[in-house]
Amino acid sequence: MTAVDGLLHPRAVAVVGASERSAMAGRLTRYLSGFDGPVYPVNPNHRRVHGLPCYPSLLELPGPVDLVLVLVPAARVLSAVEDAGRAGASFAVVLSSGFAEVGADGRALQEQLVEVADRYGMRVVGPNCQGLLYRPTGLAATFTAAADGVPQPDSGIAYVGQSGALGGSFLGKARDRGIGLTAWISVGNQADLTTTDAAELLVADPNVRVLACYLEELPDGARWRRLTVQAAAAGKHVVVLRSGRSAAGERAVASHTGALVRAGAAFDLLTRESGAIQVDDLDELLDTAVALTGESRPRGHRIGVITSSGGAGGLAADQAEAAGLVLPELERAAQDVLAPLIPAFGSTANPVDVTAQVIDDAGQFGAVCDAVAESGEVDAVLVVLTTIGGAAAVEVAEAILRAAERSTTPFVVAWLYSHEQIAEAGSMLRRNGIPVLDTTTAALRLITRLVPQEGRRAEPAAPRGLSRFLDRPSLTEASGAHLLDALQIARPRGRIVDPADAETVARELGEHVVLKVQSPDLAHKSDVGGVLVGIPAERAGRAAQEMLDAVAASAPHARIDGVLVQEVLPPGVELLVGVQGSKHGYPPVVTVGMGGTTTELYSDVASALGPLDAGQAVALLRRLRGWPLLDGFRGRPRCDVDAAAAAIASLSQAAVELGTDLTELEINPLMVHATGAVAADLLVTTTRQPPPGRGTCVSSSRS
Amino acid sequence: MTAVDGLLHPRAVAVVGASERSAMAGRLTRYLSGFDGPVYPVNPNHRRVHGLPCYPSLLELPGPVDLVLVLVPAARVLSAVEDAGRAGASFAVVLSSGFAEVGADGRALQEQLVEVADRYGMRVVGPNCQGLLYRPTGLAATFTAAADGVPQPDSGIAYVGQSGALGGSFLGKARDRGIGLTAWISVGNQADLTTTDAAELLVADPNVRVLACYLEELPDGARWRRLTVQAAAAGKHVVVLRSGRSAAGERAVASHTGALVRAGAAFDLLTRESGAIQVDDLDELLDTAVALTGESRPRGHRIGVITSSGGAGGLAADQAEAAGLVLPELERAAQDVLAPLIPAFGSTANPVDVTAQVIDDAGQFGAVCDAVAESGEVDAVLVVLTTIGGAAAVEVAEAILRAAERSTTPFVVAWLYSHEQIAEAGSMLRRNGIPVLDTTTAALRLITRLVPQEGRRAEPAAPRGLSRFLDRPSLTEASGAHLLDALQIARPRGRIVDPADAETVARELGEHVVLKVQSPDLAHKSDVGGVLVGIPAERAGRAAQEMLDAVAASAPHARIDGVLVQEVLPPGVELLVGVQGSKHGYPPVVTVGMGGTTTELYSDVASALGPLDAGQAVALLRRLRGWPLLDGFRGRPRCDVDAAAAAIASLSQAAVELGTDLTELEINPLMVHATGAVAADLLVTTTRQPPPGRGTCVSSSRS
Repeated sequence: MTAVDGLLHPRAVAVVGASERSAMAGRLTRYLSGFDGPVYPVNPNHRRVHGLPCYPSLLELPGPVDLVLVLVPAARVLSAVEDAGRAGASFAVVLSSGFAEVGADGRALQEQLVEVADRYGMRVVGPNCQGLLYRPTGLAATFTAAADGVPQPDSGIAYVGQSGALGGSFLGKARDRGIGLTAWISVGNQADLTTTDAAELLVADPNVRVLACYLEELPDGARWRRLTVQAAAAGKHVVVLRSGRSAAGERAVASHTGALVRAGAAFDLLTRESGAIQVDDLDELLDTAVALTGESRPRGHRIGVITSSGGAGGLAADQAEAAGLVLPELERAAQDVLAPLIPAFGSTANPVDVTAQVIDDAGQFGAVCDAVAESGEVDAVLVVLTTIGGAAAVEVAEAILRAAERSTTPFVVAWLYSHEQIAEAGSMLRRNGIPVLDTTTAALRLITRLVPQEGRRAEPAAPRGLSRFLDRPSLTEASGAHLLDALQIARPRGRIVDPADAETVARELGEHVVLKVQSPDLAHKSDVGGVLVGIPAERAGRAAQEMLDAVAASAPHARIDGVLVQEVLPPGVELLVGVQGSKHGYPPVVTVGMGGTTTELYSDVASALGPLDAGQAVALLRRLRGWPLLDGFRGRPRCDVDAAAAAIASLSQAAVELGTDLTELEINPLMVHATGAVAADLLVTTTRQPPPGRGTCVSSSRS
Repeated sequence: MTAVDGLLHPRAVAVVGASERSAMAGRLTRYLSGFDGPVYPVNPNHRRVHGLPCYPSLLELPGPVDLVLVLVPAARVLSAVEDAGRAGASFAVVLSSGFAEVGADGRALQEQLVEVADRYGMRVVGPNCQGLLYRPTGLAATFTAAADGVPQPDSGIAYVGQSGALGGSFLGKARDRGIGLTAWISVGNQADLTTTDAAELLVADPNVRVLACYLEELPDGARWRRLTVQAAAAGKHVVVLRSGRSAAGERAVASHTGALVRAGAAFDLLTRESGAIQVDDLDELLDTAVALTGESRPRGHRIGVITSSGGAGGLAADQAEAAGLVLPELERAAQDVLAPLIPAFGSTANPVDVTAQVIDDAGQFGAVCDAVAESGEVDAVLVVLTTIGGAAAVEVAEAILRAAERSTTPFVVAWLYSHEQIAEAGSMLRRNGIPVLDTTTAALRLITRLVPQEGRRAEPAAPRGLSRFLDRPSLTEASGAHLLDALQIARPRGRIVDPADAETVARELGEHVVLKVQSPDLAHKSDVGGVLVGIPAERAGRAAQEMLDAVAASAPHARIDGVLVQEVLPPGVELLVGVQGSKHGYPPVVTVGMGGTTTELYSDVASALGPLDAGQAVALLRRLRGWPLLDGFRGRPRCDVDAAAAAIASLSQAAVELGTDLTELEINPLMVHATGAVAADLLVTTTRQPPPGRGTCVSSSRS
């Protein structure tokens, strides 16, 4: 027997602390009556509980037990778990509270609990959890009143989450929608079994088609990826609601690319890449799950709106653009199919207004649904209904269902009416994978979320031995330059020389140059007057000497290796390119942004997981609102996007190769010219360095 | 007796077409049983209808009748209305369909209908409407099934709208929320009584406290303003849902300020100015109306979140920023008050996590509500509840109600649970002005909408005789210059001269100049080579002559007045300033935007109604994301914001003075320097001109 079997398919279930006296314990035993195997109440104070014989101890049961539910005061939990282990159970679900959630003493008790379970090779769910529901075996091992009256039909939707409170909310909302969950697990304190463990278990279950997951902390990236990949491979879907996204915080330095990347960006990107969907609240979690039990998803952002109310259709049309959707006006051919089905005072365009007259004729309404769905001009059909209730509503629902069965275009319904009036019709639709929302706003948002997102990564390139550049806590200018050279990213021309040779070198580089003192002891050379910008070539020698004198005065003990004489770059389009290194099992996050003042004022950035190939880097740049500036905006010369993309791709590959040694790589700015792209400034932060120092490799020629 | 009395307080109501045979007519008579006066069914085919004596004709009623409901086929409506007039009714509500909504014949019939009614001084509601409900007189004059089972308690909320379908949806949704509407009017085709008429009627009604208005077309601006001002003066609130906002369309030329102003911008701004609230869907219309029946509104964007679920509180916190709200961490003093009320494993910061333990103790929970509401650190309290249902839910609701009564800080509840479980608690809260939402997202959005918006206009300035500048269909350069001078807005220096004098004038103006041909016959002078930019002063004479030769070749019949030699403006921050003229009773709309490429790529614009004074113009500029560029961004010199504001204010006053003669005024760009702001280019479009010509007054020195 596998561990999963013990939790979801136990041969028998025992309840330690069974009682009719407390409401919680009473519900727990009562709900278990639906289980398709023996249930053993355990309580030395009772002979019978809810009509079942009650046993004084887990060690005196009449048969084997796989799953033990524990609902006794915290102080008595350890011995109950010990007994469960002795009785040969493979899972203990500890519903009792009073553990890590109440402080240090509880935390210690919780650790002991896990130790005891480990000793018997037993897994623990909880403590401080609300248990589980598993429809295929009729198992309802929870005390939450939210499990009362949950509809039976099996939706294929499973829920897992830490929070018992939100788990109960999810159950209650599922009941409102007429949806019976296939499985529901509240993992509580996660002393042993985590949300991700439970999610893996459920994704592997053949009865589960959609996993709705509530997270409060980020799972390990590699496990999360494995889970979503497994789900996708099995044709299953994952929807995630994550709380605490704001608490993770953003870095304070607003001018920095990294600061513009939301916390948890790697999780968000990884989730999107795998085809899982992230949502913002519990209603979305459930409604999206319902939609994903359907056969098809919208392939793009074009929607057809069918309505019996011009006004309601107008509301949908108004908000479509804000939701990122478009309502194409239907082509003549499609409108010709619709015309005979719709009175002249309706509309065959889009929204398609069938009028109240047609809504009463299920056949005709169904034909309209067919025509729109099969027009080839829409990726999803939104049906907006108003004052249609009771039996008439059921007929309309049946017409939509039949049309949806005939089509590969998904249907979504916004039904603006009393829940009571549309309860039956709504349940019928939802149980067949057609979500029914209260508002046009919610329906449009749902459709947008359902559109599959692009998100592939390139293959990692062959290692280039880059870790040798990170050997020192603070990289010298030369190391940074070598790193850029290894990455085949262009940098400003220049040479490190004595002041006496500065003028000669400067004259080779142009009319004006940048001068930078070179010293292994100066991390912030501009603080000691060690950077001069825009110096005329003919004055470079004297300026270099004056600079060294000034540095010597400020930092008398700094070793001086010379002066870097560097070209002044011609103007171009400035980009920021930042890569946050891999951590917690997540791949690096590549962020590009328009440079200059626009980055700060308009936060024009886009992120993707690394590594990227050049094509993916171009796709990332295209997501910037400022993309036209690179693409020959208003008659300006088109920039060398290929060169910029190659630099971005190379930087992303470097981050992959450097792995967790790397904290951050940043080119700011990458100057993109009509030909070529030059890294004016590279910043490298590694996990090897003593915190929080940053090693400037190639200081900006412009700062 | 006033007209209002006849509609909402009729002495008696007659129903033409009363019958038990049709479902519609049956409901109509049945609903009327609640009316607190005589109801007269009229139908020659029946003796009694629903237990009431039925009369063969309106002319044979036993007493006076004020309100006649008509539900007979369209062909018989005219004679019914004629009879109603003869019977002395002051209002006919025509529920029958088959009028303007079905085409030309119906439209003709509808016109006749109004003529007949006019003849008797009778007002008509409809046709093709769903009637009305008015709780104070028990009047339910509608056939919509949505009126079934509507709760009785009187909320003070009135609904008015064209759409019967959405009106029914609103009723259904109100029923779900336990809200009884005070009044409900579906105006249908608006042959006579419009939505605005009905809205005026309802705002004047002492029983109405909040008007929820569904619009499909823009009302006249002056009337809409009067209505909202009246409502505000009476301490009443108006909430508006408008459909068809996208259909109104935007102008095609994206580089133009006007194109960035949403259609209906004047309506939106006027609505906001008056303190009315505009929403996006029907749920928001209702929930906002519920919130406005409460005593207080949030004074700002700071919210305190109280929850029994850390996870749910986290969801609220995550989304607050996106909703434009902030969750300040409570100060020590407030946390000290909270500490003894909350277990150590809860949280006294913000969100305040009271834990499941406290939620069960109404007194303690109420004290927490008090402490947060009275902390002085929040403008609204959001209570986020999860799995609390039935009697426990009612206790929690009572605790919230009592806290809300003690405080001037408004409360909003997000209750994430089955509707059935929280129906009673939810109704109780809503009936006391505390909205209860299904999701944290919806609750946050609602709070944001409730925060009063700034929106005052300046007093119109004394007229400056500006209309004299609009006398010609196409303004000359000189007229444009004179208009700017009259507005005291600086323009580039320059003079109109013969080519022979061009060089002399150019040398006075700077190293380089702009040359523009002057002709009353050339609206688009750059099309004929009539504009030259960046000409060295010493070459100005020859260039001017060559330009005139080129123009003569292209446009041989154009009269030439000379050449404008104009200075090249120094670089500065470029703004767009556009004013759309008054129309349909709406004031002018002033739009400012950052100029240059940013305007197009980032749509950085802000709008307000004119006229503005200088202070309001500065406030408008501050709303631009690019404001820091004007305000000394990153060590740059601060621009002369006062000069820019004075120009904007002056232009807005010009639009007010020019009234409906003006289509649009636009300065593009307004160059803002460290000292001064110069209108490089002025564009004026008037309603006097033959469409669609635009008169360029001062062409750009930069185009």
